[in-house]
Amino acid sequence: MAVLEISASTYSRSGACLSPNDPLSLRLVVKNRRRSIPCSARRITKILCSVAPNQVQAPELYTTPAGVASKKECFGVFCTTYDLKSDDKTKSWKSLINIAVSGAAGMIANHLLFKLASGEVFGPDQPITLKLLGSERSFQALEGVAMELEDSLYPLLREVSISVDPYEVFQDAAWALLIGAKPRGPGMERAGLLDINGQIFAQQGKALNEVASPNVKVIVVGNPCNTNALICLKNAPNIPAKNFHALTRLDENRAKCQLALKAGVFYDKVSNMTIWGNHSTTQVPDFLNAKINGMPVTEVITDIKWLKEEFTERVQKRGGILIQKWGRSSAASTAVSIVDAIRSLVTPTPSGDWFSTGVYTTENPYGIAEDIIFSMPCRSNGDGDYELVKDVIFDDYLWERIKKTEAELLAEKRCVAHLTGEGNAYCDLPEDTMLPGEQ
Amino acid sequence: MAVLEISASTYSRSGACLSPNDPLSLRLVVKNRRRSIPCSARRITKILCSVAPNQVQAPELYTTPAGVASKKECFGVFCTTYDLKSDDKTKSWKSLINIAVSGAAGMIANHLLFKLASGEVFGPDQPITLKLLGSERSFQALEGVAMELEDSLYPLLREVSISVDPYEVFQDAAWALLIGAKPRGPGMERAGLLDINGQIFAQQGKALNEVASPNVKVIVVGNPCNTNALICLKNAPNIPAKNFHALTRLDENRAKCQLALKAGVFYDKVSNMTIWGNHSTTQVPDFLNAKINGMPVTEVITDIKWLKEEFTERVQKRGGILIQKWGRSSAASTAVSIVDAIRSLVTPTPSGDWFSTGVYTTENPYGIAEDIIFSMPCRSNGDGDYELVKDVIFDDYLWERIKKTEAELLAEKRCVAHLTGEGNAYCDLPEDTMLPGEQ
Repeated sequence: MAVLEISASTYSRSGACLSPNDPLSLRLVVKNRRRSIPCSARRITKILCSVAPNQVQAPELYTTPAGVASKKECFGVFCTTYDLKSDDKTKSWKSLINIAVSGAAGMIANHLLFKLASGEVFGPDQPITLKLLGSERSFQALEGVAMELEDSLYPLLREVSISVDPYEVFQDAAWALLIGAKPRGPGMERAGLLDINGQIFAQQGKALNEVASPNVKVIVVGNPCNTNALICLKNAPNIPAKNFHALTRLDENRAKCQLALKAGVFYDKVSNMTIWGNHSTTQVPDFLNAKINGMPVTEVITDIKWLKEEFTERVQKRGGILIQKWGRSSAASTAVSIVDAIRSLVTPTPSGDWFSTGVYTTENPYGIAEDIIFSMPCRSNGDGDYELVKDVIFDDYLWERIKKTEAELLAEKRCVAHLTGEGNAYCDLPEDTMLPGEQ
Repeated sequence: MAVLEISASTYSRSGACLSPNDPLSLRLVVKNRRRSIPCSARRITKILCSVAPNQVQAPELYTTPAGVASKKECFGVFCTTYDLKSDDKTKSWKSLINIAVSGAAGMIANHLLFKLASGEVFGPDQPITLKLLGSERSFQALEGVAMELEDSLYPLLREVSISVDPYEVFQDAAWALLIGAKPRGPGMERAGLLDINGQIFAQQGKALNEVASPNVKVIVVGNPCNTNALICLKNAPNIPAKNFHALTRLDENRAKCQLALKAGVFYDKVSNMTIWGNHSTTQVPDFLNAKINGMPVTEVITDIKWLKEEFTERVQKRGGILIQKWGRSSAASTAVSIVDAIRSLVTPTPSGDWFSTGVYTTENPYGIAEDIIFSMPCRSNGDGDYELVKDVIFDDYLWERIKKTEAELLAEKRCVAHLTGEGNAYCDLPEDTMLPGEQ
């Protein structure tokens, strides 16, 4: 790995010096791992590339034009890219979007990044930049991930940058997929976990607020994801609260699969599956509103005892069983569910169906407490936004369980008041509600 | 995991007994992990499902119609599937194809299986069955993989079965992706590795010959992959020799990336990249015939010293650097390269371009020794078959290196003569040519 101190520079294939307006303009190659020095004040930055400039034919130094920000640490072949509009193959493509991923050296990201790069998430005409956030400890692993992305030759993947600074990674991000979180250490209480991760998500919220695209969509995967998402939201007042999501899609997918198994149908026959509430053991997979072959689940599966006593447990135990069998957590299917969650926001929801995502409860039509992140049924017209589904029904059994997961989220919120700017924290979490197999 | 002894059975969603011609016919749910008893003689088989029949509503016993084979061990929700032709959403789809994957509990497969299931390899109208081959030791992990596939709800993935018996897994396979191989133990010579893996691939060749689709395409990934593919081919005389491939696509992808880096262009500008010969350190990444922006590489990169002395080394060191940085081998990019290798056979090759794959040399136009598996430039019209590219040029430098990798493959072949039915083995492998970072 060549790391050398030079001014921000670029070079052309032919070796000629380029004007900033040249259609063959190449990307700035700069490193900026610490935010302590304001970027505009910097003269000396670092280049980080798997090829050093003196290994590129006839590189020419390039002076950063005044006013051009240079807060990016690109990687290898991704330091060099063409103006997509000047190339016949790519000129009809959409504009490049920045996708920031935290925990980028971890196993979930190791599945997700290649799915994002392949085009299966944003479509075959959407070029992307992947901006990978890791830790000092994982920095070498991040380089390894970037190398594998290089070697995969995905045409839609035009830029990759890696950093340990959220202010760099979130710069102009259209999507922020926040996977990274600290695992719970031995003997750590849930309150301790909320605090240690809450601090990370408070910092990331501030960074998003300052540098991300004003309409950035944020999906929080790192646990405890609902309250982490709330903390992130509270620290990012300039970003619409509606844009923050906590991932409950893996729970939804598992619930669909378990209903399909019980009914003896293929999983594509199960629809309208809601996960209500927290991504924890208080979550409520809703069999009252779900459908199988368009019919209410309760008309297809008449074993109500199973639905009430076994179904939820089966959904929640899935991760734990997987750890036992496979020795690893469910990285692959979690990555698939992140893909599903994004696709549900960027493609129109099929008629009559909906999906679940943990979103901000203010102005919800159900009477759920306001000002928390709660998984609820949503529809999208494919523009990245969503609306809550109104035509759902409740019975005492469902509502009682919704109130229990709501109470937990309100308790978690009190526990992180110091991180949301709402005074002193008061922690009275009654029990461990972490899902088996998760950290 | 419920395992119970019953006759081969099925059941309908409504609980009614089904005739074999019913469009809602469900799949047989049987387990057959040992091949010692001929299948036709079996009366008692095992069901293996993540849901037991008594947990499915109103199951009915079903008698296997005479002549219906029942050699499958399905998994969970995949034990239950509809007739695709009877469903509006799926009736225009192609017929289901069986894809067998060995080493299915490993990390390469963990990336690959989800790519196969997503439709990115065989297209959005090609439903697939995944037949996973593992070992006794990895059987629980296989179940974990199958669970994650269940939870991913891929509409195109209609069946998943898991087994430790290649005769079961390869039954009617249209594709066999042979990833599994023994890693080299401490102090083991390459000859020892050839022998231990050769035995596995001899057995798998016999199984393919007996039970696979007669036109099955076989891609060998497990190392040493060229000679493993040759052994497999020699043990499967009923399958066209042309159908056996050794994976050199990751080498091709890495070579393209390194040329792009050196030239300061994006990797999609590099074409006509051949890897000649063995997937080992004697491999020849061919810069003489490769092109950048349609121009010979040697006209774009005039640093011939770099091309001759550094380029090949950079391609080959990639895996080793990755192990150092990332602590793992290149599972993700290997899986991507398997996807690329398959897609190159099932989609027409772009005009003027080609791809590399290790194939049988008999009747090759280059004068390479016959009767070995050698990576060469190929084109396909997308029907799963390929033809060798004729318009390539050679110079002394290129030819000399091709002869060296050819000599190695001929030596490897002599070393496994006992496994290819060609007499006694004679091993005179001069040196360790395993690629860094591979086992």
